[in-house]
Parts: sequence; C-alpha cells; structure tokens
Amino acid sequence: MSHNGSAGYTLPPLGLNPSTTAAGTTPGSFAKRGQIAPGAEGRWTFASPDTPGMPQPSDKTAWDFLPEGWKTQVLSFAAECIDFAPGQTSVIFRQSDQSLRKVEFPATFRPITQLEQARVGIVSAQMQRVSEREPHLSAVQVRDEVGAGRMVIPANTVHLGYQLDPMAIGRASKTKINANMGASPVSSSTDEEVEKLKWAEKWGADTVMDLSTGGNLDECRDAIIRNSNVPIGTVPIYSMIIGRKLYDLNHEMILESLKHQAKQGVDYFTIHAGVLREHLSYVKDRLIGIVSRGGSLLAKWMIDHGQQNPMYVLWEEICDIMREYDVTFSIGDGLRPGGLADATDRAQLAELSTLGELTERAWRKGVQVMIEGPGHVPFDQIEYNMKLQRTLCHGAPFYVLGPLVTDIFPGYDHITSCIGATSAGYHGAAMLCYVTPKEHLGLPKKDDVKQGCIAYKIAAHAADVALGIPGSRDRDDELTKARAALNWEKHFELSFDPDTARAYHDEDLDVDTDFCAMCGHDWCSVRISKEIVEFASGKDDAFQWDKAKVSQALTDEQKEILEKRGVLSPQEIHRLAAKTKKGVKADEGKANCHSDFVDDETAKKIQSSVELVELKI
Amino acid sequence: MSHNGSAGYTLPPLGLNPSTTAAGTTPGSFAKRGQIAPGAEGRWTFASPDTPGMPQPSDKTAWDFLPEGWKTQVLSFAAECIDFAPGQTSVIFRQSDQSLRKVEFPATFRPITQLEQARVGIVSAQMQRVSEREPHLSAVQVRDEVGAGRMVIPANTVHLGYQLDPMAIGRASKTKINANMGASPVSSSTDEEVEKLKWAEKWGADTVMDLSTGGNLDECRDAIIRNSNVPIGTVPIYSMIIGRKLYDLNHEMILESLKHQAKQGVDYFTIHAGVLREHLSYVKDRLIGIVSRGGSLLAKWMIDHGQQNPMYVLWEEICDIMREYDVTFSIGDGLRPGGLADATDRAQLAELSTLGELTERAWRKGVQVMIEGPGHVPFDQIEYNMKLQRTLCHGAPFYVLGPLVTDIFPGYDHITSCIGATSAGYHGAAMLCYVTPKEHLGLPKKDDVKQGCIAYKIAAHAADVALGIPGSRDRDDELTKARAALNWEKHFELSFDPDTARAYHDEDLDVDTDFCAMCGHDWCSVRISKEIVEFASGKDDAFQWDKAKVSQALTDEQKEILEKRGVLSPQEIHRLAAKTKKGVKADEGKANCHSDFVDDETAKKIQSSVELVELKI
Repeated sequence: MSHNGSAGYTLPPLGLNPSTTAAGTTPGSFAKRGQIAPGAEGRWTFASPDTPGMPQPSDKTAWDFLPEGWKTQVLSFAAECIDFAPGQTSVIFRQSDQSLRKVEFPATFRPITQLEQARVGIVSAQMQRVSEREPHLSAVQVRDEVGAGRMVIPANTVHLGYQLDPMAIGRASKTKINANMGASPVSSSTDEEVEKLKWAEKWGADTVMDLSTGGNLDECRDAIIRNSNVPIGTVPIYSMIIGRKLYDLNHEMILESLKHQAKQGVDYFTIHAGVLREHLSYVKDRLIGIVSRGGSLLAKWMIDHGQQNPMYVLWEEICDIMREYDVTFSIGDGLRPGGLADATDRAQLAELSTLGELTERAWRKGVQVMIEGPGHVPFDQIEYNMKLQRTLCHGAPFYVLGPLVTDIFPGYDHITSCIGATSAGYHGAAMLCYVTPKEHLGLPKKDDVKQGCIAYKIAAHAADVALGIPGSRDRDDELTKARAALNWEKHFELSFDPDTARAYHDEDLDVDTDFCAMCGHDWCSVRISKEIVEFASGKDDAFQWDKAKVSQALTDEQKEILEKRGVLSPQEIHRLAAKTKKGVKADEGKANCHSDFVDDETAKKIQSSVELVELKI
Repeated sequence: MSHNGSAGYTLPPLGLNPSTTAAGTTPGSFAKRGQIAPGAEGRWTFASPDTPGMPQPSDKTAWDFLPEGWKTQVLSFAAECIDFAPGQTSVIFRQSDQSLRKVEFPATFRPITQLEQARVGIVSAQMQRVSEREPHLSAVQVRDEVGAGRMVIPANTVHLGYQLDPMAIGRASKTKINANMGASPVSSSTDEEVEKLKWAEKWGADTVMDLSTGGNLDECRDAIIRNSNVPIGTVPIYSMIIGRKLYDLNHEMILESLKHQAKQGVDYFTIHAGVLREHLSYVKDRLIGIVSRGGSLLAKWMIDHGQQNPMYVLWEEICDIMREYDVTFSIGDGLRPGGLADATDRAQLAELSTLGELTERAWRKGVQVMIEGPGHVPFDQIEYNMKLQRTLCHGAPFYVLGPLVTDIFPGYDHITSCIGATSAGYHGAAMLCYVTPKEHLGLPKKDDVKQGCIAYKIAAHAADVALGIPGSRDRDDELTKARAALNWEKHFELSFDPDTARAYHDEDLDVDTDFCAMCGHDWCSVRISKEIVEFASGKDDAFQWDKAKVSQALTDEQKEILEKRGVLSPQEIHRLAAKTKKGVKADEGKANCHSDFVDDETAKKIQSSVELVELKI
C-alpha cells in the first residue's frame, strides 16, 4: 500500500480483495493470502491469520486415508492422462495447479460418492454445478477440494433424481447456513412441513435439517426430500427410538433405520459416534452436562447397557450403508458445551479427537465427512475451537451451531449466536447452523425462522467478505453506491430484505428524496458529501435518479411488517398501503390525477411535518 | 491445564478467569493475561492476543504529555507521601503497584478535571464510586488509569450537582454502550425527550448522546442533564449552525457555543477537529465520501472558506473551556468510512493520526480524552483498527460506532453492527455506540431504541467475558445452573429481558415443568442429563424447584410482546394474560379453587396437545 508508513502506521500483510474491481479506497482483506491448491498445499485457504498458540492445520488430507489397496502419488512427469474406466486399476489426472496425480486402486472399484469420483479424477456434474454457483472456483478446483476431504457436496443419489440443486460446504467455498425445522414432538401436516421448507429456502437456508420427532415421520421426510432444492439432513437416532424404549435400541435397528433413510434420499446424517463411554466422566463437573439430544440419549444408553457407543462400534458398517447412496456424514458433537462455563473443556476436546479418528475411518470407506461443532463458546475461544478442529479432522468441513457468546439473553439468541458464528466462519467453519430467537424457550414460529436465517446470512456473508473471497463484497459496494447517490429504490432492491427496508423507510417518510428521516434534509451528510464537487461520492451515473418522488404504495408484505412493529396507527398504515396505488398500477381513477413527483421544497416540507418524522416514544 | 497435550491438543496461553469461582469446566479466557498497572506497564490490560502485523501499544501515556512546567518520576524510595494542597509545588503518592510517584507542578495549579486530580494523586469521590460499581477495580487503580489517560470519567462538575452517577470508560473497566437520541430535525417536547432518556437508561445505556437538531434545544438539553443518571454527550456543532448559514460560522461563535454547553453540564463533546484540509483529497475516490454529519459540515466549511478546520485551529482554546467544567473530549472521526469499500483507508488513518496529536495536546491542557471510531469495517480489519488507535492515541479510550461488518442488510443493522462491536470491544474499544434497526432508513422508534440497546449490551458483555474481566461471567453461570435445573422462574429472572423470555416461553407452554416446548418431555437433553446420576448437572440445591406448575398470568409487558409478534390470536393472549390471575394475586374468586400446580403427567399431556405446541407457520 502506498500509504504504508507515511503517518505512523503500517498495514498488516494483505490478503485477497473481496471486491472484483477493487472498488473504493479500502486495502484488501487482512486474512491470510491463501491459494486454492490441491492436496495439503491448499490447507490455508481461506484462513484467518493465527493468534499465538493456535494449532496449525494438519498436513494430512483425505489422500492420506485411502481405502486398503489404494495408492497415490503426484508425478513429476507423465506421457498422458488416463481417465477412469470400469475394470482399470489406475488413473492419471491433472490437478488445478497443473500437477499430475496418479491413483491406483483395485480393478473391482466403481466410484459412487463425490469423494470417490474425485479420487479417480472425475469432475462430476455436481462439481460442475458447484463451480457455476461459486464463480471463484473452477470445477477442477471443486474436485480437488472434495478429493482432499476439505469440501463436501451432500447429494444423495436418490435426491439427485428429484430437484436437488447441488451445493458445496467447505472453507474454499462461500460460508453456508443451515435451518432446522420440524422440531415439534407433535407433528404438523406434511403440507405444513413443505411450506416451512420453502420459507427457509426463501430466506437463504443453504441446507435444511428435518428434526421431526413425531407424526408420520416417513411420509413427511419423503415429501421434504421430493420438494427441496437444498440438501436435507436428519438425525436418524430420533426415528430409531420412536415407538420403542431407548433401552431396547440395538445394533440391527440402527443399521436398518439408516438404510431406510439413505434409500429415501437424505443427504446427510448427524451421527453422534464420538461420545464414548470413557468421555462421560469428564462431563461430571460441568454446569450443564450434555445438551445434545442425540448425545444425551446415547450417554443414557451406554450407562444403562454398560457398553460402548453403538454408533462408534458400528462405524464401518454405517459407512457402507452411507457410501451406497452417497450420504454425507455430519459427525455429531454430543458433548458440545451448553453454557460458556463448559466450553473448550476436556469432554468437548476429547470427543473432537475421536471425531478426527472417525473422519479418517470414514474417508477410508470413501464417505464424505463434515464435523459438527459447538454451541456456547466465549468469543475469545472461538478461533481456537475452529483451528483445533482443522488440525484434528484434517480440514474436513466444520459445521457449527452458533456458537452463543453469552448465556444471559434468552429471546435474543439469534443475535448472541450470530456474533459467534461470524467469528467461527472467519476462523474456519464452513457451515453455520442457525439459532432462532426462540432458542431455549420454545418452538420457532414463522417469523423466528426468518429472523434466524437473516442473522445467519449476515454472519456467513460477513465472514466471506472478511476472508477475501473474490466477489463477495460486490453487492455491498453496489448498495453503498446507491446509498451515496441517495437512490432509495436501488438501495432497497440491493438489500437482503427489501420489504423490511422499504417499510421502515416509509414509516417516517413516504417520499424518496435526497435525504431520509434520520437526519433530515439540512443534516444529511451524504447529500452534503455529494454536493462537494471534488468528491466522486454519489456521482456514479448508473446510480443516478431524477427527482424526488412519492414512493409506491406499500405491498402486503410491507404492510404486515409495519403492523407487527406497532408504531403507526392502522389508519396510517392503510394510507401508505393505498396511497397513489402506483404499486398496483393506479387502479383508482384519482391516482392518475396526482403526480408521483414532488419538488424538493415540498419534499423538505413533508419531511419536517411533525406528523411524519417525530420520534414517537 | 491438566488436559494439555493428552489427546493431541494444547491450549493457547491462558488469561484471567471471568468467573469468580472458576465455575464449570472451561479453562480461563484466551485473552492476554494482562495486569492492571500504573503508567505504561498497564498498556496491555485487558487485551486480545495480537495476530501478526498488529501495531503494538504505545509506550507513552498521559504522563508523557504533562502541561508545561510539570515533571514526574517514579521514585525508588521516599521517606513519606505528600498529599496535594493549594500552593504546593509537588506531591508524592503511592500507586496501585505500591510504587511511589513524584509529581512537580506550578504553585498556582488547582486541579479541576479528573485527570488533573489523578495527576496530583487525588482519589476523587467519582473514582471511588467507579470502583464501587466495578468491583474488579480498586479506587487507586481507577485513579492510576485516569492518570495514564487510559480511562475517563465523564462528569461535568455542573452535572455532578444533579443526579449523575459517575461511571468510567476505559479498557480496564467493563465495556460501555452509548445510546443516541433526539436525532429529529423536528423537536419533540422536552417531556418526551426525558422519557426517551429514561427508556434508554432502562435498557442499559451507560451514556446517552443528545443529538437534537431542532426545537428548543437549550431547554431540552437542560432537562436531559437534570434528569439523567448517566453522562450526557453532545455534538456542539449542531446547535452552532441552527438558525444561521454554515458559511457564517466563525471562531467566536464556536467558542461561545461551547462555553454555553459546558456551563449547562454536558459531560462530553464530540468535536471533529481531526478532519484537516489536507485530508480531503484522500476522500475523492471513496464510494461514499463523508458520512459523519459533523465531518461533512466542517469539510464544506473548509472548502467554502479555503481555511483549516476551525476546531483544529482553536484546539487549545477549546481545551481551556472544557477544562473549566471537566467536559471530556470525544474527538470525532469525521472521516469514518460509510461503507466497507472505504474502510481503513488513507483518509481514515490520516485523520486517526491527527486524533493522536489532538490527544497529546488535550492531555497537556489537563482535559480528559476519548476518541471516536468507525463505522463500517469488514470483520478482518477490526482488530487492526482498534490496535492502531491504541498506538497512535497512547491508550486513550476508543469509542466506536458499531462497526457494521456488511452493508446489505438495512433493517438489521443493529445485528450487522453488534457483530463488529463485539470484536471491537474484544480488541480494544472501551465504549460502543449503538446502532438501531432503523439505521440508514429513518428515525428510531421506542422499540428500535430497545433493540439497539440490547444488541449492544450483548456485544459489550460478550467482550468483557472474552477479555476475562473478573466476575463478568458470573451471571451467565447462574443462568446456566438455572437452565440445568430446569428452573424456569430463575432462568427468566436472570435473563437480561425477562418479559420477552417469559412471553416466548408461555406462547407455547404456560406450564413450568421439566422440559420446554422446544424438544418436549421425552426429548429434553437437559432433563435426561439431569437424570444421569453421576452428573452434577442440574443438581445445585439453590436452583432446585419443587413441582411443575402453571406459570403466572402474563403481565402487560409480556402481553404486548406477544401481540407484536402476531403469532397467537388475541383470544389466546387474553387467556394467558388472565389465566389464574396468580400474577395479580388471584383477584377472581375462581382462581383460588384451582391449583397452580400440575402433576407431571398432566404437564406432559398439556405439552403434547396440538393447540399449544404445534409449529404454526
């Protein structure tokens, strides 16, 4: 940077620039300047700089945990590439850094999972689609990340036959969010569950977990899978103990149930195989024991039976079932902390170590793996948690719940946790499981689902920008330009939730003019800044607009938003919703007689009339 | 830690433990183990560990910027301490680390400001009060921090004559939050302003800024000062240009206006003296120029007059006025970025450098100083911004606005910014200026003020816990214990917003029993965990409760919260609000005939009735 050192400051090392055009005046990201690269070379991308004492990334990848009878090497030279074909025993393919990888395998091998396809050099249609959806990644890079185990594409082969739009989870791709649904012990109808699914998709959920524990589980799961564009995850132990006592659960029932759900098309399974008998004594002095449902059920089973966790014991058999349909593992953290007081403790870390072992074993079976993480973690401990997982699980994607950074704000845990989630994403997590305002209190309602999704889209997006993922800041910059030009319509169009932004604006001032009700005309710094002739600010041609004009009538969504806020009178909301009816193509004769345009002086007067702008408190 | 290295993981260096009793199983904070210490020794407390390339703290303090004719040294020995008395020319006093400091000064000197009192060894009543409010600090430590310039106690001597409860801002104390009010160009009545003040105080605002720009400014400011328990800040340039053209503003008017407000009892002034003429060219290529109101007004003034910033030119005279009433500086950052694209740029950092110079000059005048900071900053750049300020401004408290970590979520900027604020607090900011959901869109309403305050209490508290400030986690731990014991009443009592927590709970299930509507009886991990005999979880005697019982009737506040959510029907809300009337001492005969207690079986049945727990979407 040219201004380094010129006035008593030096910038830290610069990473990539999250803006495609390096817009504005900010330097690039201060994250590590990683390179997307195949094998262990790519273990830093995208990564935050390490504070002292942080575990370094593992120098192993899924390539180090191949099935028996497999071998691989990177060649210095090869006459030609060899594509996979049935019956062959080796392939040679070019990786994204142009190096050549040779892989040898038994003649009977036929690839099923995305990991297996990557291992024999295949760029699958799903990898191709991921690269289309994330233009900063080439399809070959996607394949290399999947092959290294650092990325998963949860896409059950059955679900691919329906409407699944393949997506990827991994630190080289954009940060994803998950929304949970169906958590009721009383089933709602299948139609309602599908409606919930669509609502979560609308608000940006990248995957959805069906956590139903009642009603016609099977029919419902089937309907969700058939209707979803996003991958569907489940926690199969829930359906295993429906209609029976936990004590009666046995190995056969477990495998049976997994087989059934795999066949239905579930894309990923949360399996709490890492909670071992020997870990339970570490839980003793916690303030709040075990807060994972799957974890607590398995702990009780182990204590009652005096036996090891059946999921751990059956791991290889489970892998075989999952491989057949390419179900991805989301290895559950049954010992995640349920309060700040229990974070990063021996129980949690001992389990994480076991999750690393399970990752290696799953990779040897050709199954894709992601790892679940906490929970409730103080802000200072988040980076360590992310980086320790990266080490112990060799870069397998980390899928975390929050974490909440304080315990004393029930009713606001979408906020307490999206703070932790942003930090988690920046420091290494690849997917963030949302938390709604109803967390700890009851069942999320429609608006809670929306609030949870939005808080997590904020977290995921903020992490992507911070990591310098190319292009991730472009929409922010567009919105900033619209803001500088005082172009309200474009401002709202570029907003994540345009209806809310528009409704809040119109609540005070239903005229789009060169100021807003926050500061008023005379005090608008953006307007003043725009007037200063030597500044480029707010002068971008594409963002200019003509005149102050009366905004369109409120839509039903916007009306509902204002009604829920309960600030304006029903009459006032009705007026805003009816107004000139421009929004609904002037269906009243009178509307056409009135100009939608307002001169600046009138706009100023409107804005300063007590009725519209007074801070009503 | 005993578990270091036992399973493939080593913990980073441990800081202090934010729990008084080291409750639970988590290790201490991973922040730096700082020590509160006088002079430059204390520059690390409380601090996050540095990522590579971070500026190191200045080794200078306010002791290095004494007025002319002053001298100080730390003595290796002194026969006795010498207290301050008028007419003297030196004092010797014992600092918090038991070292002795000698200070020499002119015989005419009489201390007025807290900084001046600290400089001559006085532990003021205000410092005493701060130590009572923050038990982790002794009064002598408070004095030493104030003397080093790392802490301010904004307490105008006039305001002290009313109802001000002295508080401190500085990184050795707990993180504070500020709420803005009165931003309307149309004045609301004085009574309404006072009501807003009380509302902000209720929701935890540690200071309040009166940003009124219309109405009877003087009368209103006076009423606010007389009625507030918290320090009041203003941006005096606003009232300077009321009723006149900006162009006509001159040096005399500026000093006049400042004198007037100082005399009224304002505790701190935001003065944008750091925006210099020579910085304006750096703003040219920004996407959104200048977004500080004070900054844009002064930029326009400088351009129109072809002169330097009058606040900068008049700095020493301004200091003299402020010293007389002990008004604290909040030196404004007129060039703070208004979008991610403009963050940490040359304009911003050049101004910050000037703010450092102004800090030194103010300290030489005996005036307390804090510094204002951004704004909109990507998550990766926050640490650097905080640490550069610590360097350039020699540890003067940093008071930041957010920062927002993304631009595309208008309507949710209390969330986008409290993420940044948490990181800012952890990395060095001492006070966080709230942002409400209406930011960028319009005037905050009553509920917006509440939402803004709560988001920022979350940020401040999360930062305190993360930094390991002793005792800061105690309430979280108490709530976790209540949660583990499934003691709902205590759970809500310990919540920051008990009404919201209770209302959300009762929306689904108006019975307090050993589960909640989230998972239901059979699926409650906390209940299962509690049943596992070898766990301590949920067995704390003080947190036990007897039986499942019907919760109290909803209060008016709780009723209103449910009404605004718009999930339940008015009839259902009415039922919850009337119920057994236990909450209002059973004023209906019938209530007494019904038991408030419910047996577990009934509770289970209630919980699984479709009407109450179904996820209505």
